[in-house]
Amino acid sequence: MASSWTHLIRFIAEEDGQVHLGQIDAEKFPDVGLAVYEGKKLSARLITGTIFDGVLSDKVLHVATLLSPIGVEEVPIIRCMGLNYRDHAREANMPIPDVPVLFIKPRTALNGSFPAKVPVPQIAQDGTSDYEAELSFIISKSGKDIPEDKALEYVLGYTASNDISARAQQWKNSQWCFSKGFDGSCPLGPVLVSPSALKDPHSLQIKAIHNGSTVQDSNTREMIFRIPEIISFLSSGTTLERGTVIMTGTGPGIGAMRNPKVVLNHGDDIRVEIENIGTLINQIYYE
Amino acid sequence: MASSWTHLIRFIAEEDGQVHLGQIDAEKFPDVGLAVYEGKKLSARLITGTIFDGVLSDKVLHVATLLSPIGVEEVPIIRCMGLNYRDHAREANMPIPDVPVLFIKPRTALNGSFPAKVPVPQIAQDGTSDYEAELSFIISKSGKDIPEDKALEYVLGYTASNDISARAQQWKNSQWCFSKGFDGSCPLGPVLVSPSALKDPHSLQIKAIHNGSTVQDSNTREMIFRIPEIISFLSSGTTLERGTVIMTGTGPGIGAMRNPKVVLNHGDDIRVEIENIGTLINQIYYE
Repeated sequence: MASSWTHLIRFIAEEDGQVHLGQIDAEKFPDVGLAVYEGKKLSARLITGTIFDGVLSDKVLHVATLLSPIGVEEVPIIRCMGLNYRDHAREANMPIPDVPVLFIKPRTALNGSFPAKVPVPQIAQDGTSDYEAELSFIISKSGKDIPEDKALEYVLGYTASNDISARAQQWKNSQWCFSKGFDGSCPLGPVLVSPSALKDPHSLQIKAIHNGSTVQDSNTREMIFRIPEIISFLSSGTTLERGTVIMTGTGPGIGAMRNPKVVLNHGDDIRVEIENIGTLINQIYYE
Repeated sequence: MASSWTHLIRFIAEEDGQVHLGQIDAEKFPDVGLAVYEGKKLSARLITGTIFDGVLSDKVLHVATLLSPIGVEEVPIIRCMGLNYRDHAREANMPIPDVPVLFIKPRTALNGSFPAKVPVPQIAQDGTSDYEAELSFIISKSGKDIPEDKALEYVLGYTASNDISARAQQWKNSQWCFSKGFDGSCPLGPVLVSPSALKDPHSLQIKAIHNGSTVQDSNTREMIFRIPEIISFLSSGTTLERGTVIMTGTGPGIGAMRNPKVVLNHGDDIRVEIENIGTLINQIYYE
């Protein structure tokens, strides 16, 4: 049996200038994003095939440019959980929801490169651009009406993500799809960790770090609806297509609820750091 | 110059059993859906190429099965307007929104055949399944930050649609993506009318007809945000991909707000009739 990947990256190789999938040595590089950001040279074992069926080879390639772990052409949609952390619901003075709260980002929100620039469009340049550190996972095979006890079979891997939000637009109406759906508003990655390597996704420290200051610091155990419940609920009457990205919600400390408020300004550095996954690093720019 | 289509259908041809695009003679069949439902035999002039670049040929084919005008593989996403009719906002006792209210259905909601069965999944079999008659249009070319005065250049054509909604689920939380996103919850079609043939999309009578009774009866002039405003707003900082379906909202008379309430039950016939476009006919079935 071909051995399976545990820490997948997507990258442009020095050797041929092409996009490849690769396996990172997680012992040597426990935080791929931080390592690349600090200028370290990475090598990766080539994964042949697609992100869904890829197998590890022995060939080693050198990373010229790190990308998000999944390309936009393989992502049909991004499904997002709102108000899914107990500590965030308390902070927001919102009741604990009875059912998972779903909103959707289009695939055009996926932000592909690393460290990616996150564009803030003109309509959101109003001093209310905000971050939300979130654990995300990718669906490995299409499914519908998935029972909770089978749900984890549909998880391809886990990664870090940031649900970039335009708060003034968000609060202008009841629905969140516009204010959270701009191009590039879903930075994701850089490493995808397999369920075999990340046994318990519900006990991970998760932080947002803004210009060096920790502004969110929670733990995925605070999730109201855990991953099997999310998958089962979202697949009720609904096909979750292979490649779907699911964002699991954020903890307390979003910029709009801090005192004083924190805003994502042009040039800011914003990071999402998740235990056993690593750091997603982005820079903000005003289009 | 090749002549352009004005009334496009997608269908399986009697001649070869393959899926084709065709032009309907709108003088002879002003309501394609009703004609097919009544068992009339249709023929169509073959359109060669895709829905985006198709041109009329002289070849005539016979319609064995009518489909929705666009296939799911060409639809990246379905963007929907909430509360976009003045008369519906009055009925719902909701303030006129300051900005367009956007929610999203996944492409898996597209219901392809005609007359399509609309599945109500188990989770929504609670006596609150509902209809919303809506004018929809399809985006002809990808664009971002589209000014209002260029917006209509991005419209490929107009059609009828029904925003099937699970009200009890909708009212359990603030976001509408789950309750309106089930597989098959977006029946669409059957004819796509070009902007050249439908000069004014803002003066069309639009009705929902439930088991033969008219339950919605409004006019697209009641739209709060008109099509150029919708396109311009939704494209702010956001690429509207080619093939995107945009649903423009519904008028008063939805089942949940009628007295007595109207519910979509197993076996019900539900129709959306739009002036100069025709009738979308669906049957409800409980999965």
